[in-house]
Amino acid sequence: MSFSYLSHLECPVCGRTCGADEVRQLCPCGAPLLARYRLNELGKDWTRDSLVGRENTLWRYHELLPVLNRENIVTLGEGMTPLLDMPRLGLDYGISRLCMKDESLVPGGSFKARGAAVGVSKAVELGVQKLAMPTNGNAGAAWALYAARAGIEATIVMPQNAPAITRSEAALAGARLYLVDGLISDAGQIVARAVAEDGLYDASTLKEPYRIEGKKTMGIEICEQLGWKLPDVILYPTGGGVGLIGIYKALLELREIGWIRGRLPRLVAVQAEGCAPIVKAWQERKERSEFWPDSATAAFGINVPKALGDFLVLRAVYETAGAAVAVSDKELLREQWKIARLEGAFICPEGAAAFAAARKLAEQGWIKEGETVVVLNTGAGVKYPETAQVEPPLLNIGESIPSRLS
Amino acid sequence: MSFSYLSHLECPVCGRTCGADEVRQLCPCGAPLLARYRLNELGKDWTRDSLVGRENTLWRYHELLPVLNRENIVTLGEGMTPLLDMPRLGLDYGISRLCMKDESLVPGGSFKARGAAVGVSKAVELGVQKLAMPTNGNAGAAWALYAARAGIEATIVMPQNAPAITRSEAALAGARLYLVDGLISDAGQIVARAVAEDGLYDASTLKEPYRIEGKKTMGIEICEQLGWKLPDVILYPTGGGVGLIGIYKALLELREIGWIRGRLPRLVAVQAEGCAPIVKAWQERKERSEFWPDSATAAFGINVPKALGDFLVLRAVYETAGAAVAVSDKELLREQWKIARLEGAFICPEGAAAFAAARKLAEQGWIKEGETVVVLNTGAGVKYPETAQVEPPLLNIGESIPSRLS
Repeated sequence: MSFSYLSHLECPVCGRTCGADEVRQLCPCGAPLLARYRLNELGKDWTRDSLVGRENTLWRYHELLPVLNRENIVTLGEGMTPLLDMPRLGLDYGISRLCMKDESLVPGGSFKARGAAVGVSKAVELGVQKLAMPTNGNAGAAWALYAARAGIEATIVMPQNAPAITRSEAALAGARLYLVDGLISDAGQIVARAVAEDGLYDASTLKEPYRIEGKKTMGIEICEQLGWKLPDVILYPTGGGVGLIGIYKALLELREIGWIRGRLPRLVAVQAEGCAPIVKAWQERKERSEFWPDSATAAFGINVPKALGDFLVLRAVYETAGAAVAVSDKELLREQWKIARLEGAFICPEGAAAFAAARKLAEQGWIKEGETVVVLNTGAGVKYPETAQVEPPLLNIGESIPSRLS
Repeated sequence: MSFSYLSHLECPVCGRTCGADEVRQLCPCGAPLLARYRLNELGKDWTRDSLVGRENTLWRYHELLPVLNRENIVTLGEGMTPLLDMPRLGLDYGISRLCMKDESLVPGGSFKARGAAVGVSKAVELGVQKLAMPTNGNAGAAWALYAARAGIEATIVMPQNAPAITRSEAALAGARLYLVDGLISDAGQIVARAVAEDGLYDASTLKEPYRIEGKKTMGIEICEQLGWKLPDVILYPTGGGVGLIGIYKALLELREIGWIRGRLPRLVAVQAEGCAPIVKAWQERKERSEFWPDSATAAFGINVPKALGDFLVLRAVYETAGAAVAVSDKELLREQWKIARLEGAFICPEGAAAFAAARKLAEQGWIKEGETVVVLNTGAGVKYPETAQVEPPLLNIGESIPSRLS
């Protein structure tokens, strides 16, 4: 038994392969590289039963993760987040079994911790000392924090309008932090120059092959938590789309090692109406998306006008007979409120977008009676105070709560 | 095997006992009531091995929790938070093994979720339909959210200066929320009147017996996560002190059922210099604290000028040969920054106070070479944006990151 069954890296576009024992960024053809494992061997060596009693983090799946030596793991206890039944909301939507995979319960309160934990751990293993990345806030905060724990220097560039708290996280962690008066794509150009000039490790979405390996553990956990029975539908709020690509990759790997069987869940990419390049491409049955001009949404994390991995997202949606759905800011903010009211969960606006899409798909009959539906909530609502401003009444000392009748 | 081994309620002051099958608030003598279990029987029926493979929430210890029927459980996946090694910080402090019990990884990002989960679940079991409580923010937010999930109406009163995000949580969850231009003690008086006039269930700290049962699971988890070997010291940021009382209660119960043995950890109550009634009482070897006038601290959660359970906190500290320590706001804010920088964790100011106290006690030699120390971080730093304001440089689109030399 190896700790990891990592084999090599492979380009999903040109098919080129290369070793995973040194720093790699994009394939020479410009596409992201994906990690491949010795799945045949793993299918023989590894059993689902072996998971019982393992640590309650994503590292319980270390055989299917890229870190070769346990000592290189950089962890803050990420993973094995709850899969919660949402019965009252399900009733409201007309969905028999509605579950929330709640990624607010990770370090930093955003699912970005998964990619950062695995990405930074592998960076440590490869000897990286300095990394850089553009971010819409949460990813940069997560990478800055894990880099601090690893003793790696992080350079982070984020839009000026990214959630303010993510600045504090990155700065407190000691990152070299810059804001840009633009979008994540503008931050990306600044980072690309810094990478070229200073020889930094480029930790941009999909420009290093390991962040997605962290994200895919959401898919493995969903399967394990449902007792290895597959849900019918999984909805995911889609910006860069790495989570969705990762979940799909996990499902294929689990099928290959024989841990799951049958029809894969229909994967749904959810976007905001103000930034819906994947939805547009899906509606036009295209393989890739086009840059979405003047993008804007209250769900800041999915304000990504053009994703490097768009073709992988679309492939996952097409191959699972899934869908791509856009919701308005009004719909997602109403849903955020509804979920707190009915189920006691204060979720992030991106997660609320995915719930709003579930409501829509159930109304349209695309989600059918009796189906099991998993919605990804990618982060904690508390990181987005501006989405839920309230003005409660103020009492003076000694005053009483007004009677209900007044 | 019963689901719960709850037996009755007992007053730790006058010794009076009463049944746990109906709504109870304080003992007629004015002291809090504590839940008692059939520990003899439980010691025979229950084994540590039976925990392997159980759910990763605090409900894994249901035998030692007060909810009799599983169907009454109201859960958002709380508990089994990480116990993280902090090696670089430990080195900085001169502590051989320094661990953080990280309560930021619970619903709402604060350890208050534990008390709310168990308290609300038991309220459901007892048929409660309306509850009320004063709060410094996080507890009210947690109770409002769990009450929403349970379909219970919550009335919450908090100081105007409580963390703003906790208002949003409570209001979004549909609570009747009021602010007061004063302290938690002023909020408490308003709630007491509403309770008396409207017949609400009083969920104030220790005025119902079950919140502490949720909090005590922190103690059980620490023991389980350390393989049932006890740490030498546990530090806890102390406002109302329920967590500390709960941890001590858990240790005594675990010892009685034979799961742990030997000397109990020295329990340390940590307060802020601007609100240190327990520390003052401890220094004067008193049994109870006095009201602390004009209290103020950046660690808002521990701004509690007089705690109902002060004598139980002090008893736990005395009986374990522990200590009570005050730290300044400057010290705790510096520690918050240091922990992010060295270990990649953005913790709350209350947790930072406990770490600052650990540093102090190690410097003073009270914590000795070779000891294992557990510090409770009671919540996520992201809920306190004002403690970590930063002003990163702003770049224009197309601009470059300035060279390091400039």
